[in-house]
Amino acid sequence: MSGTPSQIASTFAQSAASLSAIAKGFHARGWLLGTSGNLSAVVSRDPLRLAMSPSGIDKGELTAAQVLLVDEQAQVLSDHRGKPSDETLLHLRIVKDREAGAVLHTHSVWNTILSDLHAGDGGISIEGYEMLKGLAGIRTHEHREWLPIIKNSQDMSALASSMGKTLSNNPQAHGLLLHRHGLYSWGSNLQEAKRHIEIFEFLLETLGRTLEIKQRLSLRKED
Amino acid sequence: MSGTPSQIASTFAQSAASLSAIAKGFHARGWLLGTSGNLSAVVSRDPLRLAMSPSGIDKGELTAAQVLLVDEQAQVLSDHRGKPSDETLLHLRIVKDREAGAVLHTHSVWNTILSDLHAGDGGISIEGYEMLKGLAGIRTHEHREWLPIIKNSQDMSALASSMGKTLSNNPQAHGLLLHRHGLYSWGSNLQEAKRHIEIFEFLLETLGRTLEIKQRLSLRKED
Amino acid sequence: MSGTPSQIASTFAQSAASLSAIAKGFHARGWLLGTSGNLSAVVSRDPLRLAMSPSGIDKGELTAAQVLLVDEQAQVLSDHRGKPSDETLLHLRIVKDREAGAVLHTHSVWNTILSDLHAGDGGISIEGYEMLKGLAGIRTHEHREWLPIIKNSQDMSALASSMGKTLSNNPQAHGLLLHRHGLYSWGSNLQEAKRHIEIFEFLLETLGRTLEIKQRLSLRKED
Amino acid sequence: MSGTPSQIASTFAQSAASLSAIAKGFHARGWLLGTSGNLSAVVSRDPLRLAMSPSGIDKGELTAAQVLLVDEQAQVLSDHRGKPSDETLLHLRIVKDREAGAVLHTHSVWNTILSDLHAGDGGISIEGYEMLKGLAGIRTHEHREWLPIIKNSQDMSALASSMGKTLSNNPQAHGLLLHRHGLYSWGSNLQEAKRHIEIFEFLLETLGRTLEIKQRLSLRKED
Repeated sequence: MSGTPSQIASTFAQSAASLSAIAKGFHARGWLLGTSGNLSAVVSRDPLRLAMSPSGIDKGELTAAQVLLVDEQAQVLSDHRGKPSDETLLHLRIVKDREAGAVLHTHSVWNTILSDLHAGDGGISIEGYEMLKGLAGIRTHEHREWLPIIKNSQDMSALASSMGKTLSNNPQAHGLLLHRHGLYSWGSNLQEAKRHIEIFEFLLETLGRTLEIKQRLSLRKED
Repeated sequence: MSGTPSQIASTFAQSAASLSAIAKGFHARGWLLGTSGNLSAVVSRDPLRLAMSPSGIDKGELTAAQVLLVDEQAQVLSDHRGKPSDETLLHLRIVKDREAGAVLHTHSVWNTILSDLHAGDGGISIEGYEMLKGLAGIRTHEHREWLPIIKNSQDMSALASSMGKTLSNNPQAHGLLLHRHGLYSWGSNLQEAKRHIEIFEFLLETLGRTLEIKQRLSLRKED
Repeated sequence: MSGTPSQIASTFAQSAASLSAIAKGFHARGWLLGTSGNLSAVVSRDPLRLAMSPSGIDKGELTAAQVLLVDEQAQVLSDHRGKPSDETLLHLRIVKDREAGAVLHTHSVWNTILSDLHAGDGGISIEGYEMLKGLAGIRTHEHREWLPIIKNSQDMSALASSMGKTLSNNPQAHGLLLHRHGLYSWGSNLQEAKRHIEIFEFLLETLGRTLEIKQRLSLRKED
Repeated sequence: MSGTPSQIASTFAQSAASLSAIAKGFHARGWLLGTSGNLSAVVSRDPLRLAMSPSGIDKGELTAAQVLLVDEQAQVLSDHRGKPSDETLLHLRIVKDREAGAVLHTHSVWNTILSDLHAGDGGISIEGYEMLKGLAGIRTHEHREWLPIIKNSQDMSALASSMGKTLSNNPQAHGLLLHRHGLYSWGSNLQEAKRHIEIFEFLLETLGRTLEIKQRLSLRKED
């Protein structure tokens, strides 16, 4: 995926269109409200180039023309007035450490709640669900996925650094949560990253709703 | 529904278009996230031919052109590079045992939760809801539907076999759940199978939400 | 609203198009799943003619061409093979007793649950919500709306009769629930009937979710 | 933003189109059911002119042509038969006191429930969520937002007056709740007001669902 300028331009155009479509779909589901969340796709590995969603844009109306081309220092290369998301450094961290082809960050009600309820545990263990088989490389529902939770911060360099440590300590993880700040997942390409997001959002909602009902059941037995 | 090659081709084209439309609608409702779930329709009985959704495709973007024609050994006959869903054997089992014209498998948050809460009971009893009248052959809300729950497995032959036993032991059942893996339902044609899925998804959400509220009420009384 | 044949034909065409649009919108919200629910609009008062949704049709795909013209004995007058909903008698009852111009019947998860939880009370009292002001003739949120609950039955004549009594005993009511069978509301025209349905569905969901949280709060205080 | 007649006409046309699009989107999410809620945008400051949603219209079908131009006494200037929302006085109050460019009022299930649960506290404290950073001028999730709750009334002058006091007493607030009547938020323009609404609706749903789960947890510990 090294790229000549013309290859980069062509791949960038395709990625920008896909990012726009995914953003609208996720916004409709309530996963990117209030300009939250951000999306990226690798356009070239050498030199490293990302198609990156801009900062402060309504994701329900994100157009391909608003998507930015950035380099590995998060500098904008495309001919835009837009500003890349503050979290571009986090996307770059994941792209480098995981050799990911795409990174998606959603901010749903359920991922916010679960990141809060399990903050003290440092992560969430998910096991025994068929849906886990959709994660890259997983062959059985008996897989145990550990979804780490990272303390939130407004210092993006510090956050990128703690994210780097978490990725390094959890080499099998397919995603991570920022405390009360949402979910990051990634994949070898945009299609896989989107699949991973849908899987984690499904599983977190399932865990949250099960927690409600099951704890009530356990409460009855204890009384 | 025996078919000459040209009848099969014509019926297959119609079925593929319908499967695409149903897949998009169910994906929008969150019932087929993360490439989960699969869909089929019988195109011919003699020889047995199924229109089958491919493996690993985003159901929100499933096109008619991606749908596969398979035979009764789950071999692909159509001129595609696609791979049929691993669960094609389960679809074939239902088609044969129930003389079904279509089989749909959804993987929703509520069907996952309910398959878990009632796993110890071996199934879920649903009774007294008007919505039950929408199941084929049912004339009154006083009907009692038993929705069996089957242990999940990655061995598709074993799973097809246990599904066969469950179908045989529950000749009146209109659907079944795989534990933490979703709902299977079927019908004499795609329209009826879609109706059955909508009915079961409705009833499972209703039971799940009622369980939350009612157990709290019973808890109050017991205390 | 008395009608010559050509006036009836023209009004029927408009009503059929509106019923199709409302059906699709309500189906998308999950209020008409599994071919449940039905919709009607008065096309003429003298003679009494209703535009009526047919039985057994997927409401997400209801076309204007499928809507039936029926008389006051629920006989089909239009040139269709379709069968009117079994509940046409209930629509006619409401049209006559309330001088309604349109009747809508939705079957949502929340209206099913609330009709069950309050079945022993014979109805649900709703008071103090601004949303109540959207009901015809209501000027303040301090209004108390009594939403009666009727025992479900498969005998449509008996059900029409008990509905008639309930309407007579509750002359101020803007809607009613059938036990585990859904909501009926109506209005002077389709627009008003749709507004009433949206208001009741909103209020029932609000009451259901509040019940969950508040009973837990009361539980804490009692312990 | 002072305006000549032709500037006003041009800005009004743009605002009306945007209000129509936002109304349809919010109605689809269930935030404006039953003709509830209303929307406005400032078209000119000197003289003060608002594009205002009309009273009693289905927000899912609000067209740009139905939007009204009103002056600072809530009198309709445009050539319409429509009646502006009764709550136009509240919009004008916010526009003047906050120098807002747009005001949006949604009426969702979660904002209704939360306005009720916290009515005794006089407001809701929201702190520690990344989503808060989307509110104008907020730079960190450590921000504490106080969302005041005002007693509901049908006397619009009295309600405008109590809203004025609340705005004055809470100069940092980005929104407020009317008890069992919905959310008001605003922004320097429509885009910002829409962002604020999405943020508050997200946070109120998150708080409501967290309350359910966490109180159960605290209940267990107390027992």
